[in-house]
Amino acid sequence: MTTTAAPQHEQQTGTDAPAGPRATAVPDDVRDAVLDVARRAQVAARSLATATRATKDAALHAMADFLVAGTQEVVAANAVDLERGRAAGISPGLLDRLTLTPERIVAIADALRELAALPDPVGEVVRGSTLPNGLRLRQLRVPLGVVGMIYEARPNVTVDAAGLALKSGNAAVLRGGSAASGSNDVIVRILGEALESVGLPADAVQSIDGHGRAGAVALMHARGLVDLLVPRGGADLIRTVVQEATVPVVETGTGNCHVYVDADADVETAVAIVLNSKTHRVGVCNAAETLLVHEAAAPTVLPVVLAALHEAGVTVHGDGATTRLAPDGVPVVAATDEDWATEYLSLDLAVRVVPDLDAALEHIRRWSSGHTEAIVTRSLAASEEFVARVDSAAVMVNASTRFTDGGQLGLGAEIGISTQKTHARGPMGLAELTTTKWVVHGEGQVRT
Amino acid sequence: MTTTAAPQHEQQTGTDAPAGPRATAVPDDVRDAVLDVARRAQVAARSLATATRATKDAALHAMADFLVAGTQEVVAANAVDLERGRAAGISPGLLDRLTLTPERIVAIADALRELAALPDPVGEVVRGSTLPNGLRLRQLRVPLGVVGMIYEARPNVTVDAAGLALKSGNAAVLRGGSAASGSNDVIVRILGEALESVGLPADAVQSIDGHGRAGAVALMHARGLVDLLVPRGGADLIRTVVQEATVPVVETGTGNCHVYVDADADVETAVAIVLNSKTHRVGVCNAAETLLVHEAAAPTVLPVVLAALHEAGVTVHGDGATTRLAPDGVPVVAATDEDWATEYLSLDLAVRVVPDLDAALEHIRRWSSGHTEAIVTRSLAASEEFVARVDSAAVMVNASTRFTDGGQLGLGAEIGISTQKTHARGPMGLAELTTTKWVVHGEGQVRT
Repeated sequence: MTTTAAPQHEQQTGTDAPAGPRATAVPDDVRDAVLDVARRAQVAARSLATATRATKDAALHAMADFLVAGTQEVVAANAVDLERGRAAGISPGLLDRLTLTPERIVAIADALRELAALPDPVGEVVRGSTLPNGLRLRQLRVPLGVVGMIYEARPNVTVDAAGLALKSGNAAVLRGGSAASGSNDVIVRILGEALESVGLPADAVQSIDGHGRAGAVALMHARGLVDLLVPRGGADLIRTVVQEATVPVVETGTGNCHVYVDADADVETAVAIVLNSKTHRVGVCNAAETLLVHEAAAPTVLPVVLAALHEAGVTVHGDGATTRLAPDGVPVVAATDEDWATEYLSLDLAVRVVPDLDAALEHIRRWSSGHTEAIVTRSLAASEEFVARVDSAAVMVNASTRFTDGGQLGLGAEIGISTQKTHARGPMGLAELTTTKWVVHGEGQVRT
Repeated sequence: MTTTAAPQHEQQTGTDAPAGPRATAVPDDVRDAVLDVARRAQVAARSLATATRATKDAALHAMADFLVAGTQEVVAANAVDLERGRAAGISPGLLDRLTLTPERIVAIADALRELAALPDPVGEVVRGSTLPNGLRLRQLRVPLGVVGMIYEARPNVTVDAAGLALKSGNAAVLRGGSAASGSNDVIVRILGEALESVGLPADAVQSIDGHGRAGAVALMHARGLVDLLVPRGGADLIRTVVQEATVPVVETGTGNCHVYVDADADVETAVAIVLNSKTHRVGVCNAAETLLVHEAAAPTVLPVVLAALHEAGVTVHGDGATTRLAPDGVPVVAATDEDWATEYLSLDLAVRVVPDLDAALEHIRRWSSGHTEAIVTRSLAASEEFVARVDSAAVMVNASTRFTDGGQLGLGAEIGISTQKTHARGPMGLAELTTTKWVVHGEGQVRT
């Protein structure tokens, strides 16, 4: 399954937002139900905003305990979802992502405990000072309030999202898709019981799965009630939410990532980085989708890289120069602009030989989705220029694109990887589910 | 001229975005012209992104010099705008805001020089570390790219906006409204000449004034070309842009600000803060619009405060309790919910007596636009609870609401005051016109 990343050049048409999605009809009863959920989330958020870290961590541990204690019930509900899925003919891969076993439930619970171990972003004093007139100023980190998450049929994300929201002091409104709705209902109920066991409101975690796609749309329009909406899933889901929503959204995940092998590059390093970036995991946003090679390095580097890719089962889509340099036995599918634009999410890689660094940067500028770009080089000047001129969430110098990941970069939890520029960019951690407020203390100071 | 701030409770209807504004027809030629401007801005932004602070500061000084040198031409173009304005019967206040004199041009130029003296936000290393596997990680502050500003008929904002964008490494696309279009055309041309004199592209500052309201709408829809759109002006302008835009927007300015005088409050401090918050400057977003008084303090505080307000020419709109406590000779207009919702932007103040801190917080939660709320109190507990529970961009303890201001809080330049929660909140400085990117250096590290 490939998705065509919306390359920057396509976005430059600047056409008016299509009338279609905005005209999606939401039945009144669904809209009212979802707004009611959002209002209750807003009320719950008030308690969460002033909850201590100790309370929130106790809640996370309770959520973990209650989930494990409820294994039988969760697995039973999950079995019903799986049966429905099989009957509907969903793929083995999707069925697997849907499946909850006792072992997986333990792992999901452990992830909640790990969250509890992380520092609390709420209450951080981002900066502060004392002003000439004596006013004491602090910029304080505070929860956003109500965080919505729309994701696709992965019950572990239900728990993950609830935990991340709670740890950062937010109430969560979750829409996990119909495939896992039975599992999610039970999970959300159990999480609510856990919350109440430590004195927090059950409404801190709510699901709108019961209201279908119209419910998701109603959530996207709940301005003033939802402070941030995070879509997690395929490009279509993300695009729909970004276009449809009137609440703040963070655009996550589309990764048409590039590896550029410069003129002065070590062959072994190039092979290792290209292979890892493409094949370490395939259906993920930080996998490389296009390889660019400086024409001076191509004759040395490409035959080795292409052979290694072929051996790893990767189908190469290349330009004329790539085809000419491919070793015997390594077929190259002729590449078109479609290939430069495509985030394959499979063992496919687009390959292009470029005249120089400028041309590589121009290709990246045109086709990138702004996620991750890597350069392999021994030239300090080339590495510095690449870093300075690439406009993406992450730039790698002699490292795999797969490192664009909250866990890998030591950020603790990760909500998703933002490819937009405002509010959050790159791997989003707990801090990205917060905002700030200014707090000023005086003794009656006024402006003169 | 009053504007009804959209109080939070009104936003809770969560109705779908109205079809009207989204269906605003933009003629093809206007759309093409504006997209062309935006594309050229994007190209110019690439040079700006890697420009040194020295170059940008030289540009700011050149812009200042060229403006002063071009005083005659600017004043002449301004005179034509003023003549048009008089013929159209615009108010004296608006005419004054439109007027450029040689002295004002010097002040505007000086503001550019002050910008040059500020630190460059670009290049800041927000955080960084070395990972267990040896990767060196940096989160680097970088320009957003193309910043659009839509504002109302104030030629000094043209220069201000251009300077702020340039200092933070962005290209600016400006829409200043038709009233000042002649002045703005000349100003933008002069600024372009100044930029070129230091080797920067003139397209770093462009205006779309010539394309009218349709041009502004086209700019709001230029997704992929405009990285941030900042509206500066009245509530109607802001609301239109926020609803219409498909590019990232920062919602600025609507300030239905509150001062709450607690049970244990010093009367003189209360009077000073209320008076300053309401009357120091009147048509501004950080002016107080509603006074809340704890019922225990009301008999002592209100008569004094109301008398002082009356003497300052403020019309009081009050509830029954306020009316009963008003001294002789101080008329009180009966207040309704409309008054709690209204950002008067005039010498009018809504006054309400509340039973306790909880009620004050509930009133604020219901009616506030999320800008600034102040408490006057001697009670530590009350001040801490107020600070913890108010969900606005700024919270003042014993200080005037008028301090919510970039200059006053020592933030350097101020683009506007954001009342939204994502990306920026409160006074926006240069850093809010930037984003970040992750830069990772390795020696060939891959994921295992």
